[in-house]
Amino acid sequence: MAPSFCPPSRLLLGPGPCNTPPEVLEALSRPTIGHLDPAFLELMNELRERLGRLFGTKNQLTVPISATGSGGMQAVLANLIEPGDAVLVGIHGVFGMRFADCAERLGAKVTRVESDWGTPLDCKAMAAAAAGKSFKMIGAVHAETSTGVLLSADRIDTLRDAADQSGALLVLDTVTSLAGLPVELDARGVDATWSGTQKCLACPPGLSPISLSARAFEAIDQRTTPVSSWYFDLSMIGKYWGSERTYHHTAPINMLYALHEATDLVLTEGLDERFERHAAAARHLWKGLEELGLELLVEEPHRLFPLTAVRVPEGVDEARIRADLLDRFDIEIGGGLGPLAGKIWRIGLMGMNATTATADHLLNKLAKVLNE
Amino acid sequence: MAPSFCPPSRLLLGPGPCNTPPEVLEALSRPTIGHLDPAFLELMNELRERLGRLFGTKNQLTVPISATGSGGMQAVLANLIEPGDAVLVGIHGVFGMRFADCAERLGAKVTRVESDWGTPLDCKAMAAAAAGKSFKMIGAVHAETSTGVLLSADRIDTLRDAADQSGALLVLDTVTSLAGLPVELDARGVDATWSGTQKCLACPPGLSPISLSARAFEAIDQRTTPVSSWYFDLSMIGKYWGSERTYHHTAPINMLYALHEATDLVLTEGLDERFERHAAAARHLWKGLEELGLELLVEEPHRLFPLTAVRVPEGVDEARIRADLLDRFDIEIGGGLGPLAGKIWRIGLMGMNATTATADHLLNKLAKVLNE
Repeated sequence: MAPSFCPPSRLLLGPGPCNTPPEVLEALSRPTIGHLDPAFLELMNELRERLGRLFGTKNQLTVPISATGSGGMQAVLANLIEPGDAVLVGIHGVFGMRFADCAERLGAKVTRVESDWGTPLDCKAMAAAAAGKSFKMIGAVHAETSTGVLLSADRIDTLRDAADQSGALLVLDTVTSLAGLPVELDARGVDATWSGTQKCLACPPGLSPISLSARAFEAIDQRTTPVSSWYFDLSMIGKYWGSERTYHHTAPINMLYALHEATDLVLTEGLDERFERHAAAARHLWKGLEELGLELLVEEPHRLFPLTAVRVPEGVDEARIRADLLDRFDIEIGGGLGPLAGKIWRIGLMGMNATTATADHLLNKLAKVLNE
Repeated sequence: MAPSFCPPSRLLLGPGPCNTPPEVLEALSRPTIGHLDPAFLELMNELRERLGRLFGTKNQLTVPISATGSGGMQAVLANLIEPGDAVLVGIHGVFGMRFADCAERLGAKVTRVESDWGTPLDCKAMAAAAAGKSFKMIGAVHAETSTGVLLSADRIDTLRDAADQSGALLVLDTVTSLAGLPVELDARGVDATWSGTQKCLACPPGLSPISLSARAFEAIDQRTTPVSSWYFDLSMIGKYWGSERTYHHTAPINMLYALHEATDLVLTEGLDERFERHAAAARHLWKGLEELGLELLVEEPHRLFPLTAVRVPEGVDEARIRADLLDRFDIEIGGGLGPLAGKIWRIGLMGMNATTATADHLLNKLAKVLNE
């Protein structure tokens, strides 16, 4: 029999997961109880309220889906999209592509507006594509994890205007932004979103916080076909998380303990303080990377704080650098995806890792492995 | 700010989750590492091999799905079923109904064969329904958690024969049987299955071990439509778990540590020894319940060892009994579902709780609350 698994001690500075704080690991290991235990129902209520604060929303359906971030995407899209629905998706990275692919598999007629990877989404082109047409949904990625590009508040506002004109729901992927950048669903008029736990929330992967507006719920009520996914049927899931407490599936109890603790840490720190910490760490990292002679993929105004994409210098074997950092210094950073594979590194300073000291540690080791 | 959540100390004797052994809780709380870390890929390989031993199969695609047991059902059915496919499902409880509902939402033309709840599935009626017809899939529940009824090996063989005659895949829900009862996918010719972690595996809920035969994979290869669920696309999931290691979604790292540990505990104990322990505990419970004057729902030859359904005596408020057990003695047992709501209790002796001492403890407290 193989011995128990002892994970190496890594500093996780890739695109996620980031390191899990000890308090959250401890919460994860508390004794399992039943998914209908009165004590557990209390935790569920608190969790909904906390997620609402993180998402900046009073939406009633603000709950963690029992799957990873992409499962939250699947849940939201499977409920909002009926076969034949027209959907407009902005694409400038892997996660916009995934959004469009997921919608298309559900039977949507997808219109894609593409911008270059590493540049911000061209929201005027999105508005132009929507103009005079009727769409069920306009979708985009708030923080494109494959490139490190932000969809700024004014760009989201442009998409909201376009959605109003074409009668569409506005749907955002907030996987890498939640708890690291302001999300503000209600202020921006976002109708539906999904996130992940292993990014700025600093909780292990395995749950996907989602939120749907009343307007999004109306769209579900008006469906003429049943939701094709039994598991992700949000009307049934809402009845477990709502006052009915109707059994749907067995909730992932211990992961929910962890998310409960992780959201507590976020709110105890304060959202603004946390955003500022992520910003300060990222700015420090950017400066250090430039001092090493490295070039950043994204122009400063469009950069994400939680995730930075760095161009691999000419002649450098990017995989060797990543392997060296991992093998010699137990530091994980990410490589590029799709057309950026081999061309960039992705460095995440998320959750407890969003500190200038962590940035310095990485810069120091990166300088070592680059100069050998 | 609300304080951290401190779960009460419960003895979980309902239909699942059961209590999680300390070793598994400890594994859950080990530091998170990356989903493509070489050390983690090792764990994945071991886990596949161990799950194969638990399922009694050499199937290549034997992996945990990143969702709960019902998510594994969703994944298996979404990949095997195309709209218009004919599917035959045996129903004698909630989980057969769920199977049929899930298939129907995916566009299957579902034929239902129903048996009374609490009795075994009438597999001759299933064979008669299949005779002379072509089905894509014949499905049933191995251990019906809502009633405590087993689908015995000879009944599975009858279904396998029927599947052969009608060109169908044989698909079983093994949520409550895996690691508590022999599953033996290869010996029984089962083409696809899903299970859960929170039953006899004694791991927290949140993952669904599944397995697909080569024949099932051929059916996926021959699809003329894409799998409607991006998240549950098994061809892509198989490439992450296979030698390609292609990123699909971020695996629930810490939950996989826990499952790795839980499977280690099962195999260290020995499958036969574990089955025998579940059987001995259940027989002890049955005897004790009858000595209390209670009547069991299911006739002995068809009873599940991990889960026992007991009729609520005339005039007894079943919810009061469950509340008393929970409030006074921290013991959770389950109520009935659907037509059996209010009529039965469901008592699980699963995983570490499958001991005669645990059965005695429950019997003692149950006698107390019944006689007050």
